[in-house]
Amino acid sequence: MPSSYYEEVKRPMSSASAPLDAAIVARVRTSFARQGAMATFGAELADVATGHVAIALPIEPRLSQQDGFLHAGVVVAALDSACGYAALTLMLDEAEVLTVELKVNLLAPASGESLVAEGEVVRAGRTLTVCRGDAYAEQGAERMHVATMLATMVRRRAG
Amino acid sequence: MPSSYYEEVKRPMSSASAPLDAAIVARVRTSFARQGAMATFGAELADVATGHVAIALPIEPRLSQQDGFLHAGVVVAALDSACGYAALTLMLDEAEVLTVELKVNLLAPASGESLVAEGEVVRAGRTLTVCRGDAYAEQGAERMHVATMLATMVRRRAG
Amino acid sequence: MPSSYYEEVKRPMSSASAPLDAAIVARVRTSFARQGAMATFGAELADVATGHVAIALPIEPRLSQQDGFLHAGVVVAALDSACGYAALTLMLDEAEVLTVELKVNLLAPASGESLVAEGEVVRAGRTLTVCRGDAYAEQGAERMHVATMLATMVRRRAG
Amino acid sequence: MPSSYYEEVKRPMSSASAPLDAAIVARVRTSFARQGAMATFGAELADVATGHVAIALPIEPRLSQQDGFLHAGVVVAALDSACGYAALTLMLDEAEVLTVELKVNLLAPASGESLVAEGEVVRAGRTLTVCRGDAYAEQGAERMHVATMLATMVRRRAG
Repeated sequence: MPSSYYEEVKRPMSSASAPLDAAIVARVRTSFARQGAMATFGAELADVATGHVAIALPIEPRLSQQDGFLHAGVVVAALDSACGYAALTLMLDEAEVLTVELKVNLLAPASGESLVAEGEVVRAGRTLTVCRGDAYAEQGAERMHVATMLATMVRRRAG
Repeated sequence: MPSSYYEEVKRPMSSASAPLDAAIVARVRTSFARQGAMATFGAELADVATGHVAIALPIEPRLSQQDGFLHAGVVVAALDSACGYAALTLMLDEAEVLTVELKVNLLAPASGESLVAEGEVVRAGRTLTVCRGDAYAEQGAERMHVATMLATMVRRRAG
Repeated sequence: MPSSYYEEVKRPMSSASAPLDAAIVARVRTSFARQGAMATFGAELADVATGHVAIALPIEPRLSQQDGFLHAGVVVAALDSACGYAALTLMLDEAEVLTVELKVNLLAPASGESLVAEGEVVRAGRTLTVCRGDAYAEQGAERMHVATMLATMVRRRAG
Repeated sequence: MPSSYYEEVKRPMSSASAPLDAAIVARVRTSFARQGAMATFGAELADVATGHVAIALPIEPRLSQQDGFLHAGVVVAALDSACGYAALTLMLDEAEVLTVELKVNLLAPASGESLVAEGEVVRAGRTLTVCRGDAYAEQGAERMHVATMLATMVRRRAG
């Protein structure tokens, strides 16, 4: 198979099975803490693993669209950050991640107590990383799949 | 040309040239006022015309990503609402608009004083409407194109 | 959870575990046989199951892009048909499926002997169905993931 | 405005107003001639200008979907090549263009005599170029807008 602009990496098997370097976790947490939007949304990093990051936020009227459901833009924000940080976990040296583009299908209105957005690396390369995201609205023990994303991230040298 | 799930409408020539029924403008403004997320973002309806809506919001640290630029999710939220309301202006009777899916390319980091998101109908149908959105970061007299969106909206009966 | 324009269906567990009504399989095969493009590409229906369809086609110079790899448009064509027919398997009465929109990330150049495009339903509704597709280039026992798609299909009454 | 992974270029005003270096036109034509898929589709380069390329192909039963309309994959193939070559016209040295991802909305079934796919650069950078494509079905003097695309291209060093 000829060389590509993507460099092969193994796709992470599961978030649980992948121990992660403490320095990388710290880098993700530091960057996340600097995202003003995440603080404004009340969002938290719920999981950081190799190639996988989960972000949770409360569903509140101040983040709603016109019918009281979570605004699509807030769902996208959580998915975008989850995907970006999932990409960052696979970058070994100092780097930053920017979103090139993203596409999301909204599968159901998001209501309930909280939204969990999970980002996962589909293909990581030296320059570009493709991620997939899935968002779930949670209410007690119920969990509904409300959105699915496909996104392209680019690595930018830090500094 | 055979019938399609899209019903032909003329594409709006420009926002300026299209006078709009007052009832439709009122419907857009009422719905917008119910979007908690737009209030939280400090967003305002900057323009409502036939098949075209503009939304403006201030670029502030509380809406940032890790480098201080406006978070992609906030850019998407503004574009999504602008596109949804642009679609709503072409629906004559009681209806609501939901986002089926959206895709956005981020062209440059958004910094400056404010973001203006413009949504425009590309093709309107009885059920589905395709919209295009473009977002600009403004600083004084400068205007930079920071994102472009392509989105599909669906009409849902109100109530 | 409030009603949505999507109607819940269970996501198919796996292609193997889902027996399918013979009439639906016949409907898919009849429609596929009418796709001139699939015949021109030498494509075949490799699998038809509930909510899942696979299409295979030979990788040949006459379908290449400039470097000899399979043209992205041909990869998309196979994924699009696989997704459309996956959606059709979940429609019980006479219906046709049209593609509203699709988004694909190309993960690696497609070379080798054949391409297998798999389409799967993510969410099926009365009007709209969201599908995911993945394409693999195969060479002997090797299989490479070359593309991933997210697409929206709409049901149109037949006739 | 801080540096970005995109490098600013002026957006081409129109295809007519932009004379193009003969070497670049030759590079596009040579590459196009090597696309086996374009030959198989009977496609031709209809226009090559700075940041803008048009490709035309006949609408024929051998390229159809099940209802006799042009297969979405063929529409996408033409748009993808048009966008890729539009990006190539803005690359001054030896380079190749690969498609990272594309998203297309199908606006109407494509029937008639021929399809014209136009690709245009929205933002060009050193590594990534964002393009927009629009496809039209033509029948005599009638022209119908049948698809719109948003795509990301990446530059790869030739050789």
